[in-house]
Amino acid sequence: MIRCSVFIGVMSAHPKLMDLLDDTVPGIGTYEDFNTIDWVREKSKDRDRHREITNKSKQSTVALLFSISDAFSGWLLMLLIGLMSGALAGGIDIAAHWMTDLKEGVCLNGLWFNHEHCCWASNETTFQERDKCPQWKSWAELMVGVSEGPGLYVVNYFMYMCWALLFAFLAVILVRAFAPYACGSGIPEIKTVLSGFIIRGYLGKWTLIIKTITLVLAVSSGLSLGKEGPLVHVACCCANILCHFFTKYRRNEAKRREVLSAASAVGVSVAFGAPIGGVLFSLEEVSYYFPLKTLWRSFFAALVAAFTLRSINPFGNSRLVLFYVEFHTPWHLLELIPFVLLGIFGGLWGAFFIRANIAWCRLRKNTCLGHYPVLEVVVVTLLTAFLAFPIEYTRMSSSELISELFNDCGLLDSSKLCGYTSNSGSASGSVNATAANGLGARLAGPDLYTAMWQLALALLFIPSMAVGAIAGRLLGVCMEQLAIRHHERDIFRGWCSPGADCITPGLYAMVGAAACLGGVTRMTVSLVVIMFELTGGLEYIVPLMAAAMTSKWVADALGRESIYEAHIRLNGYPFLEAKEEFRHKTLATDVMRPRRGDPLLSVLTESGMTVEEVERLIADTTYSGFPVVISQQSPRLVGFVLRRDLVISLENARRNQEGVVSMSPILFTECDPPMSPSAPPAVKLRSILDLSPFTVTVHTPMEIVVDIFRKLGLRQCLVIQNGRLLGIITKKDILKHMAQMANRDPDSILFN
Amino acid sequence: MIRCSVFIGVMSAHPKLMDLLDDTVPGIGTYEDFNTIDWVREKSKDRDRHREITNKSKQSTVALLFSISDAFSGWLLMLLIGLMSGALAGGIDIAAHWMTDLKEGVCLNGLWFNHEHCCWASNETTFQERDKCPQWKSWAELMVGVSEGPGLYVVNYFMYMCWALLFAFLAVILVRAFAPYACGSGIPEIKTVLSGFIIRGYLGKWTLIIKTITLVLAVSSGLSLGKEGPLVHVACCCANILCHFFTKYRRNEAKRREVLSAASAVGVSVAFGAPIGGVLFSLEEVSYYFPLKTLWRSFFAALVAAFTLRSINPFGNSRLVLFYVEFHTPWHLLELIPFVLLGIFGGLWGAFFIRANIAWCRLRKNTCLGHYPVLEVVVVTLLTAFLAFPIEYTRMSSSELISELFNDCGLLDSSKLCGYTSNSGSASGSVNATAANGLGARLAGPDLYTAMWQLALALLFIPSMAVGAIAGRLLGVCMEQLAIRHHERDIFRGWCSPGADCITPGLYAMVGAAACLGGVTRMTVSLVVIMFELTGGLEYIVPLMAAAMTSKWVADALGRESIYEAHIRLNGYPFLEAKEEFRHKTLATDVMRPRRGDPLLSVLTESGMTVEEVERLIADTTYSGFPVVISQQSPRLVGFVLRRDLVISLENARRNQEGVVSMSPILFTECDPPMSPSAPPAVKLRSILDLSPFTVTVHTPMEIVVDIFRKLGLRQCLVIQNGRLLGIITKKDILKHMAQMANRDPDSILFN
Repeated sequence: MIRCSVFIGVMSAHPKLMDLLDDTVPGIGTYEDFNTIDWVREKSKDRDRHREITNKSKQSTVALLFSISDAFSGWLLMLLIGLMSGALAGGIDIAAHWMTDLKEGVCLNGLWFNHEHCCWASNETTFQERDKCPQWKSWAELMVGVSEGPGLYVVNYFMYMCWALLFAFLAVILVRAFAPYACGSGIPEIKTVLSGFIIRGYLGKWTLIIKTITLVLAVSSGLSLGKEGPLVHVACCCANILCHFFTKYRRNEAKRREVLSAASAVGVSVAFGAPIGGVLFSLEEVSYYFPLKTLWRSFFAALVAAFTLRSINPFGNSRLVLFYVEFHTPWHLLELIPFVLLGIFGGLWGAFFIRANIAWCRLRKNTCLGHYPVLEVVVVTLLTAFLAFPIEYTRMSSSELISELFNDCGLLDSSKLCGYTSNSGSASGSVNATAANGLGARLAGPDLYTAMWQLALALLFIPSMAVGAIAGRLLGVCMEQLAIRHHERDIFRGWCSPGADCITPGLYAMVGAAACLGGVTRMTVSLVVIMFELTGGLEYIVPLMAAAMTSKWVADALGRESIYEAHIRLNGYPFLEAKEEFRHKTLATDVMRPRRGDPLLSVLTESGMTVEEVERLIADTTYSGFPVVISQQSPRLVGFVLRRDLVISLENARRNQEGVVSMSPILFTECDPPMSPSAPPAVKLRSILDLSPFTVTVHTPMEIVVDIFRKLGLRQCLVIQNGRLLGIITKKDILKHMAQMANRDPDSILFN
Repeated sequence: MIRCSVFIGVMSAHPKLMDLLDDTVPGIGTYEDFNTIDWVREKSKDRDRHREITNKSKQSTVALLFSISDAFSGWLLMLLIGLMSGALAGGIDIAAHWMTDLKEGVCLNGLWFNHEHCCWASNETTFQERDKCPQWKSWAELMVGVSEGPGLYVVNYFMYMCWALLFAFLAVILVRAFAPYACGSGIPEIKTVLSGFIIRGYLGKWTLIIKTITLVLAVSSGLSLGKEGPLVHVACCCANILCHFFTKYRRNEAKRREVLSAASAVGVSVAFGAPIGGVLFSLEEVSYYFPLKTLWRSFFAALVAAFTLRSINPFGNSRLVLFYVEFHTPWHLLELIPFVLLGIFGGLWGAFFIRANIAWCRLRKNTCLGHYPVLEVVVVTLLTAFLAFPIEYTRMSSSELISELFNDCGLLDSSKLCGYTSNSGSASGSVNATAANGLGARLAGPDLYTAMWQLALALLFIPSMAVGAIAGRLLGVCMEQLAIRHHERDIFRGWCSPGADCITPGLYAMVGAAACLGGVTRMTVSLVVIMFELTGGLEYIVPLMAAAMTSKWVADALGRESIYEAHIRLNGYPFLEAKEEFRHKTLATDVMRPRRGDPLLSVLTESGMTVEEVERLIADTTYSGFPVVISQQSPRLVGFVLRRDLVISLENARRNQEGVVSMSPILFTECDPPMSPSAPPAVKLRSILDLSPFTVTVHTPMEIVVDIFRKLGLRQCLVIQNGRLLGIITKKDILKHMAQMANRDPDSILFN
C-alpha cells in the first residue's frame, strides 16, 4: 500500500497539479487580494515550467528557440525596466525643475524653458551673472511691469505661495480621485509586497501615472520629501507593468518578486545615480528573497537606468549623479571626532524624526484630522511656502540645496557659502598675521556668516538628508575657521598650509547627510556605498563609515525600528522582519492553533466525508486551508488543501461532473476504496492536495520555526507530535505571537 | 499524556540540553573531524547563550558589563582580523618584492633594500635612470667584478635560475614537512568549510605560518599563481586563530563561520585594495550563510585591513590599490565591440584553463606523477625561470606586469609599452599627413612593436589576470593604431583629436583582465566592483560589465563550473552548491535510505531497549545518528539522537552512574514507565534527544528538499508517510543523488 502510493505519487502528483494549474480549472493556484503567497509552491511551479520547456526544446527547433528566448527574457525585461525607469526619472527631474522655477517667474523666449535654460539660450549673459537675463521675468515684473520697486517682493512672495498651493492641491486631489495607493513613500508597502503579500493595484498603471505626476507636483510645491522612496515605487510599478508582457513573470508571483527586487535597485540607482549602492540597498533594505541571479540582473538594470538618465542629462552636467563632488583633499585623523559627533547627531535626529513622524501619523489616524487630508496638505503647503520664501536655502529645491552644500568653494564661486574674505574682496580690512601667512583666503567673510544663519534656520523644515547636510556644513565651517584661526596650536599644526584647503566643509556636509539618512533608514553598507559612488574616491569611506556606524548605534539604542519598519508596524502589514532574530524561549506548542481549551482543529479526512460536510465546514470556518488526515480517530497527516482550491474544485465538480450530489463522497486517496455501485460518484480531489506540507514537532523552539518561515517563505506549517497532527501555525500566528512578546497589541496585525 | 510531555518539554528540554553541552558530559554537542555541522543546532546554541547573558545582565553590574563586552566582541574581533591580515599582507608584499629583486642582484648599501629602495637611497640618480644606480649590483657584476661584458648575461641568467629553484624548493619542502594544508589556492576548501564542513588544522597556526612563508617564496620564485586565493586563506587562518580568544566564537561553529565569511572579504580586500569588492566577493562567491549583520561587519573588517595595508605602503605609492590607474578618457560606443571580443576571449580562456587545470590535477592524482611533487615543482620552476628571464615582461613579477599594462602612457614614461614615435624621438622619419595632423605622437614606434611581440610571447605562461591584461593591451594598441591611421574614415571620425588620447590601451588591458578572471572564477558583480574600485570612476563600468557578462556566458556555455567548483568536485568535498538549482523531478522517496529491498531503517525505541542492545546497534552500524520512535511496530517519530552524543552518554553512564549494567533499560521518555524495584536502574537519555528533527513526506519533490538543506543548513532529514517514519536523507545522500543525476560517479563524494 505504501509502495503503491509512493509510486503513483511519483508518476502523477506533480504533472497533474501542473496541468490543473494551467488548464483544467481556472483559478486554482492563484491568490486572493491581501493574501500571502506560498514561496515554495511558486518556485516549484516555475521549476516545473522550466523543466517542461527544457524537455520540449529537444523535440523541435521552434521549441528550442522558445527555450532560448525564455532564458533571455529575464535580461530583456531588465533592459526594458532600466530604460523605462531611467526615462521616467529623467522626465520627473526636468518637469520638477521647470515647475519649481515656474513658482518664481517665466521665460519670455518660451514657456517651456526653466530659469537656467532661459538664460543659457540668451547670449547676453556673462559668466558672473548666469542667473540674470532679460528674458527671464519674475511674476512681479510681468504683472507690475517695472523691473524694480518695493512692491515686487510682496507680489513675488504671493505668486510663489499661490503656485505652491496650486501644485499641492492638484497633487492631493489626483491621488484621492484616481490612485489612493500613490500616496506616501511606498517603501514600507514594497517591502511587504516583496515579502510575499499581495496588494492588487499597488503597482498598477494608474498608480504609476498618478505617482509620477504627483511626485513632480509635490517636489515643485516645495513639500518636504525625499525623492528616493517615490522613485523606488515608480520603478517597481514599471517592472510590474512590464512583467505582464512575459508569461514567465506574469504567471508566477515568486518570479515577479525577483524582478521587483531588481526594480527597487533601479529606483535608488536613478534617485542618487548610484547603481552599486542601489543594488546593495535592495539587498540590505528592501528584498526578502534575493538569489545571486537577481543580484547580477539588478546590477544590469540599475546600470541601464543610470545611463539612460545620464543620456537625458536632466542636471545639465553630463554626470550620472545628483550631487557630484570633486574634492580630494585628505582628511586628518583628529577630524574623526567631528565626524563621530555628526554620527551622533544623525542618530538622534533619526530617532526623533521616526517618533515624530509616527506620532503624527497616529494622530491623523485616530483623530478627526484624518478626515480632511486636502485641508491638511493645503495648510502644510501654505505654511511651508510662507516660511520658505524669505530664506534663500529653503526657496531652492532640496536637491539644489544639498548639491550646493556638498560643493567645495572654488575661486570663482559666487555662492554665499563661499563668502570667504578673499572671495568677497574685503580681505584688506583684516590683513593680519593669518592673512599674511597665506591662510587668510579662507577666513570667513560677512556673506558666509549670513549664509550660516540662514542655513541654521533652514534646518527646521526640510528632509533628513538636507538636515544632515546643513548640520555638517555648519560644523565643517566652524572647524575650518577654528583650524585657521588657531593654526599655530599643536593639534592643528600642519593642517593648513598656504594655498591649499585645510578642511573641506563639503565633506562634512556629506558625512552629515549620510549620518541623518542612516539614522532614519538604518541603512549601513548601502549608504556608505552610495556616498562612495557620489565621490568616487576611497579616501572618504572611513569618515562616512564612522558617521554611519555611530548614527546606527545611537538610533538603535533609542528605538530598534527604521522608518520603514515603523510604518509597516503602524499599518499592520504582515511582514516578517528578517533582520532581527527571534530571541524568546517559546515552543511551537505555545503558538499553534487550536490553543488549550479551544475546539479541536478543523480537519478533512482522506476519505469518508461527503460534499455536503465539506461545504458546511468551509461555510463555518474562515481558515485559508485545511489539513487532510487519515481519520478523525487517527489524526495522522496526509496532506494540506487550500480553501480557495477546495472551493473552486467543489464548484467545478458540482457544475461539470455528472451525478455529483451533496451526498457524494470526497476522496483524497489515490487508490479508490470499494464502493457500492448505487452510491453517487466520488469527487476525487487528490490533485489539489499538497502532499508535502511542512511540519514541525510541538517541541520545536519558535526561533527555529520563525527561521523556517523566513527562509523558506511559508504561509503555514503543521504541528505534529509523535506522528499525530496537533495544530497549525500560520504566518499571522507568528506575527501575533511576536507582537505579544514585544508587549504590543497582537490584534494590530490586520491582514492574514 | 500529550499535555504532560509538552509541558515538560517547555520547562526542561532546552535548558537541560544546554547545561549538558556546557558542563556535564564533555564532548556532547561537538563534532568530529571531516563531519558536517548542524547549522540549526549551532544557531540555537548561540541564541540560548545570548538569552542567558541577557537575562543575567539584569541582575548585576558585572554581568551587565559582560553582556556589553559580549555584544561588542564581534566588532573587536573584526578590528583585530583587519589589522592582522592587513599587516601580514603588507609584510608578504614587501618580502616578495625584495626576494624577487634578489634573483637579479643585491644592494651594497644594505642587503635589506630592494632594487627600487636601493636607488632611492642613493642620491646620484636622475629621474631618467630611476632603476640604475651604482649601489645596486647584479650578481654577475658582483661575481665577475666588471660592470660590462659578454658573459654577464649568462651569469645573471644562471643566478636567476638558481635563486628561483632555491625558493621553489624551500617552499615545497616546507609545505610537505609542516603543513600539507598550506598548498593550493585554498578557496575551494574555504568554501567547503564555510558551508559547514569541519577540516581540523586547515585554518590553524601552522598552516598560517607556512602559507605566509611559502606564498612569499612561490611569488618570488616566479611561479605562475594569483595572490588572491592564498591571501583569502591567510586571512581566514588569522580569523580562525583570533576566534580562539573569544568564547562566543570559539565554542560555536556557526558563529565562527560568520567570522570566516568576513575574513574572506578581508583577503580579497587586501589582495586588490578593494574593500567593497571583497565583501561582494565573499557574498557572491565564497559564503554559504551570510546574514546582513555579517555584511556590515565584513565591510568594517575589509576597510580596516585595506587601511592597515595602506599605512604599511608596500607599493610605495600611498595607494590602497595594487593597480592604480588614472585615466578618464571617455570611451566610444563602437568600442563595445572589442570589449565584447575580449569577453569572448576571456570566456574561452577560462573554460580552457579550467579543463587543462583539472586534467593536470587528475593526471597527477592517477599516475605516478603524484608521487614526486618536489621533482614536479623543481622542474616547473626551472622551466618557468628558463623561459621567463629573456623576456622583460615575464621576468618582472606578475603584479608589476599588470600594473604596467594598466597604465596609460604619460609623456615621460620610459616603458617600452609607451614607445610611440614622439617618445622615441624617431618621429622625424615618418612625418606624414598624420603626424602633421598632431596625431603622430601616438603612432607606434619600434620599441612598441618589440614590446608587443614580447607580450604575445609572455601570454603563454602567466596567471589569468595577466593573460587577460596582455590580450587586452595588444588589442588596445591595435585599435589605437587602427583609429589613428584611419582617422579620416567615417567610423573613426571624431575619435581622435590632436593633443588628446583617442583610445586608452590601459582600459583594454583592464577589461581583458576582468574578462579572463571572470571566465576562470565566474565572478560577476564582485569582479566589476573590484575593477570599479581600482579606477574609481563610474565611466568604465559599462565596458567592464559587457566583458564580464560575455565572458561568463561564453564560459558557462562550455562548462557550468568555476575553477573553485571544479576543484571541489575533483576533491569530492561535500559541498552543496547554492547557485545552481536542482532541476530533476525526483521525490524524497527516491533518495531516502533504506532503498527498496534494503534492510529496514535502524531505529531506537523510546523505551524498551537495553544498554546492550543499543551498544550492539552502535557497533553494527556506521550511521551518524538514529531516529527514536515509539515502538518498532508503530514507527511514529519521537526524536533524533546523534551517534556521537549517544556513545559519549553511554560511556559516561557506564562509568559514573551507579548500577548500570548491560541489561539496564534506556529511556528517552520523560515520564518513567512503571518498573519492578529489582530491575537495574534506567539510563535516561531524553536530554540528548533532539525533539525537533526536520521531517519531509515521501512525496516531497527533491528540489524542495535540496532547498531546505541549503537554506537551513541541515545534516539530515527524516522521511515520513502518513505519520510513520520510513527513512532518512542525509546531505551525503543528496550529493550522491545529484552526482548520479548528472551522470557522474556517486562514490566520488569522499566524506560524510
